[in-house]
Amino acid sequence: MAEAAAVLLRDVTLRDGLQDEDPIPTEQKLVIFEALVAAGVRELELTSFVRPDRVPALADAEAMCAATVGHDIVRWGLVLNQQGASRALDAGLTHLQFVISVSDTHSRENAGRTTADAVEALAEVCQLACPEAQVEVTFATTFGCPYEHRVDPDRVVDLATLAVTAGVSGVNLADTIGTAIPSEVKSLVIRVASEVTPQVGIHLHDTRGLGVANALAALEGGARRLDAAVGGLGGCPFAPGASGNVALEDLAHACEEAGLDTGLSVPAVITAAETACGSVGRTVASHVGVAGPRFTL
Amino acid sequence: MAEAAAVLLRDVTLRDGLQDEDPIPTEQKLVIFEALVAAGVRELELTSFVRPDRVPALADAEAMCAATVGHDIVRWGLVLNQQGASRALDAGLTHLQFVISVSDTHSRENAGRTTADAVEALAEVCQLACPEAQVEVTFATTFGCPYEHRVDPDRVVDLATLAVTAGVSGVNLADTIGTAIPSEVKSLVIRVASEVTPQVGIHLHDTRGLGVANALAALEGGARRLDAAVGGLGGCPFAPGASGNVALEDLAHACEEAGLDTGLSVPAVITAAETACGSVGRTVASHVGVAGPRFTL
Repeated sequence: MAEAAAVLLRDVTLRDGLQDEDPIPTEQKLVIFEALVAAGVRELELTSFVRPDRVPALADAEAMCAATVGHDIVRWGLVLNQQGASRALDAGLTHLQFVISVSDTHSRENAGRTTADAVEALAEVCQLACPEAQVEVTFATTFGCPYEHRVDPDRVVDLATLAVTAGVSGVNLADTIGTAIPSEVKSLVIRVASEVTPQVGIHLHDTRGLGVANALAALEGGARRLDAAVGGLGGCPFAPGASGNVALEDLAHACEEAGLDTGLSVPAVITAAETACGSVGRTVASHVGVAGPRFTL
Repeated sequence: MAEAAAVLLRDVTLRDGLQDEDPIPTEQKLVIFEALVAAGVRELELTSFVRPDRVPALADAEAMCAATVGHDIVRWGLVLNQQGASRALDAGLTHLQFVISVSDTHSRENAGRTTADAVEALAEVCQLACPEAQVEVTFATTFGCPYEHRVDPDRVVDLATLAVTAGVSGVNLADTIGTAIPSEVKSLVIRVASEVTPQVGIHLHDTRGLGVANALAALEGGARRLDAAVGGLGGCPFAPGASGNVALEDLAHACEEAGLDTGLSVPAVITAAETACGSVGRTVASHVGVAGPRFTL
């Protein structure tokens, strides 16, 4: 295992970045995977075990798992229920990510169930998977909902407490529609880390120009890990107003230039962004992908 | 005079935002001016008094001054020498902004003189203008230069000391090509504020996704004022790799949502952005201009 970096950036390109795109061949996804590994990525979301008719772009979940065995990489698979968890475990994954929408309305629109039902399903998944595999919970709409708008931070803390009781290894606070601001991010990370679990990650979108600012605020608050997708790909197909994930190259550049080791090569991340964006017919839309690193000398 | 806002955002659309665009009629600029005033802007860069053959888009400097008399607005005019300062004073301005490139190479490319020559010219302008008008100095390439790359913060502090001795009312630290990072911004603002003058402003570009993060870092460091242009317009025509200014609507949104009063209406700033961008045939490229404010309820 490579030496731990000061800041752990988890790449979500192959899952969140591709889920709303037209399907691309597994072989092309593996080219992206190799580019991410070459850039220094050590932890990534590989795929989702969800209904292929709902997310056809990720219908090759089992094939992706089989083709990426043997790398020194932590591979996460997203699941929404016991059936998905069984598939992920059968495919050999030991890191499952479960999603609960903090907003009840978004939960029903996105996953077809209430938040309370999702908490019950999480407990079942933890029972099925733990301790052989670890289960992390991502709280969608933590910082705002396209339907309910403002979200009560107390509700996030309460749900995180329930999730830890159910057996999760950590919680991931997701700014699904890019409505977080730095002061709120920092204060909620501190609260969850001190009141619930120190294993707090964050998942951001750069919708309102605050992606990197929120990431730095999360680190100040003690977040252990930041999600990002190369080229700013991604977005939730069922969340109106959502936009791409904060770009891995933007976060890596900001951290590295601030003296925080990420274990990543920024130029190689940009290369991976070009590969991934080219695969889905998009141009690289990230700041650093377009402008390049700030200094080349 | 309106009550002072907690955060002073100075609009630079009419100067920095337009200087590299094809010239537009004075009447159209006045429509933009009115939209900015309607949005709550209380301080702005109105124009430059430079050679019309070098910056034809701002050749109507005197006409702009004459047409905007009588508003409860602080109007800044950019000058590079005594001749420009005389024109600005004759046009009735009481706030002159002088530019010095910290990087000697950028100074020669941008203004055709060394940094040392620019400091001499600043002293002459201060003698001419003060105390009837106040002179502020903007330090271009404070956080990085397209030719020399890294810039020594000591050099900025030394130049700021010389400028204050010459008689400036404040210093403005400009991230001309978008190479600043938050930790460096905060630490330099603190240094200049404590060692030279508390009147420190900041001028940012969002080239590498750090525009808003740098703005918030500057406020944490004690900056008194932030520059921005609606729609992210602008950029230095003589600085390779430069991109638009950080957007006024992005900064106003971030500040207002964090509970920092700017005196601005974010929706009205977005309207001004649409007006300004439409005038130069561009689409609004800012984050909040595209996505809108985070919550409408």
